[in-house]
Amino acid sequence: MKCRKCGGKAAINMRHHKLGLCKVHYLEWLPEQVQRTIEKYRMFGPQDDVLVAVSGGKDSLSLWDILHRLGYRADGLYIDLGIDGGVNYSAESRRLTEQFAAAHGLTLHVVDVAETYGESVPALAARTARGRHKPCAVCGLTKRHIMNRIAHERGYTVLATGHNLDDEAAVLLGNTLQWAGGYLRRQAPVLEADRPGLARKVKPLCRIYEREMTAYALMRGIEYIQDECPFAEGATSIEYKELLNRLEADKPGSKLNFYLSFLRAKENGLFAPPGAMDGDAIHACPTCGQATSAPGECVFCRIAKRSS
Amino acid sequence: MKCRKCGGKAAINMRHHKLGLCKVHYLEWLPEQVQRTIEKYRMFGPQDDVLVAVSGGKDSLSLWDILHRLGYRADGLYIDLGIDGGVNYSAESRRLTEQFAAAHGLTLHVVDVAETYGESVPALAARTARGRHKPCAVCGLTKRHIMNRIAHERGYTVLATGHNLDDEAAVLLGNTLQWAGGYLRRQAPVLEADRPGLARKVKPLCRIYEREMTAYALMRGIEYIQDECPFAEGATSIEYKELLNRLEADKPGSKLNFYLSFLRAKENGLFAPPGAMDGDAIHACPTCGQATSAPGECVFCRIAKRSS
Repeated sequence: MKCRKCGGKAAINMRHHKLGLCKVHYLEWLPEQVQRTIEKYRMFGPQDDVLVAVSGGKDSLSLWDILHRLGYRADGLYIDLGIDGGVNYSAESRRLTEQFAAAHGLTLHVVDVAETYGESVPALAARTARGRHKPCAVCGLTKRHIMNRIAHERGYTVLATGHNLDDEAAVLLGNTLQWAGGYLRRQAPVLEADRPGLARKVKPLCRIYEREMTAYALMRGIEYIQDECPFAEGATSIEYKELLNRLEADKPGSKLNFYLSFLRAKENGLFAPPGAMDGDAIHACPTCGQATSAPGECVFCRIAKRSS
Repeated sequence: MKCRKCGGKAAINMRHHKLGLCKVHYLEWLPEQVQRTIEKYRMFGPQDDVLVAVSGGKDSLSLWDILHRLGYRADGLYIDLGIDGGVNYSAESRRLTEQFAAAHGLTLHVVDVAETYGESVPALAARTARGRHKPCAVCGLTKRHIMNRIAHERGYTVLATGHNLDDEAAVLLGNTLQWAGGYLRRQAPVLEADRPGLARKVKPLCRIYEREMTAYALMRGIEYIQDECPFAEGATSIEYKELLNRLEADKPGSKLNFYLSFLRAKENGLFAPPGAMDGDAIHACPTCGQATSAPGECVFCRIAKRSS
């Protein structure tokens, strides 16, 4: 396999794109793809102040790296969840994130959940039956709450997350297997700030395969946390990723086609406009001001209150 | 595992229903489920003249058997496709279907494609590049054409096919992976006769697992053709069935939930009404009068004409 640009030895072969590239040209090509995604979905421009949610993993660190290389004004936000799980998960991912920020002279905000809200995410989760059953749900709403809060308090115009194609396709498959109408209609590369207290959210890596992101991080020499979150074991999203990988192995490009045909169908008017189904009502939490689906205090504020 | 009805030894355990039944009670239970499906989706009543499309396989023969046991007026239609494939596929399935009809004193219409249209389905398919590439597509449109024609000519009010849950879920997954909007909006247990020349179509087995149908046919002693159609090898629908079987193995009921949540979401208004997307225009074929998506003669009439 040869590099299509220079004819040298290819470092990566992307069967879904029928494209092989050497290291030098791959490290050029990937940011170009991200730039095209940013433009295609009108995510943001050079005038925007972007807040990148950085976890210390390959996707978010690489996204930050790419946005920086593309010349965008992008600061980082690291949320210390206080997860240990025998592998020092949070401590190590925080160290790697801070190391990356320092090495590139980038601004990083750190929010320590235990310091700010009195308890770590696992401790918050353990306070409710729901959280003990689904700690990832509590973690997700904690992160969303903090990302929205910091973006709002610090005046960022857009919040970027490192969700790659595999993530998006797996979420889409999960939403589809349950025909979760509200989620299906809302899943998109850009979520407008059309609900109280919610920042504009964008996913510049939504068309990039996970494998391509790993290759980018490795070739760029980015040190990232390789452990999965200890709570993620057995997550249905991992099962969905495996199913999609089987389809992809049989027919390269299936994963990308699944996601892109969904976006096209939506654009072509497949779904009825929001509001036609139940469960679309949105309220503002009286404590934090962020959007919530039921009247009264949002779930995060209720959980956080118990720990203080 | 014991029978929930009588405490005897269970002959089948349905994990998705958390239900075990002995042979006697299973043979009672399954027709009740089909009756509930017929009523829930208002498929037909005792006053209707039902035409059952019978292939000689376990599903359609069992469907015919069940409708007969439930007291409906149901005649059969066997379409002899002229497929051999080294296993005498059509000849054997025809023999089994005729044998079933004779044994139960039921009326069976037989349409022999080669006699009626000059050539067998494999020969018709081989006449076009499209057919050589996708013989199953030509077979499908031939069967649809004949089913609609016979239902219309003989005055049947409804056409019943033996699609089971696994079939419907696999088709749904395929349509979903490509977000085929037109198909998604049209997939349903009942297709109204709202297009020129098309019979009202119903799928009374759409909530019954394939495994349940096999068990029914075996316990009832129905002789059916066990070979797959020789052209079906490597069909994507088989791959989709395998994927769904993996989900089902991990979480019994996933397959049923996937299909039923789709129907519910549609009922709740997830999709925009037909016509909002392209490709929904319907024309009547000037030769056979049946619905076709483009103006002019339908594909079936064009293919059939070449062979005469």
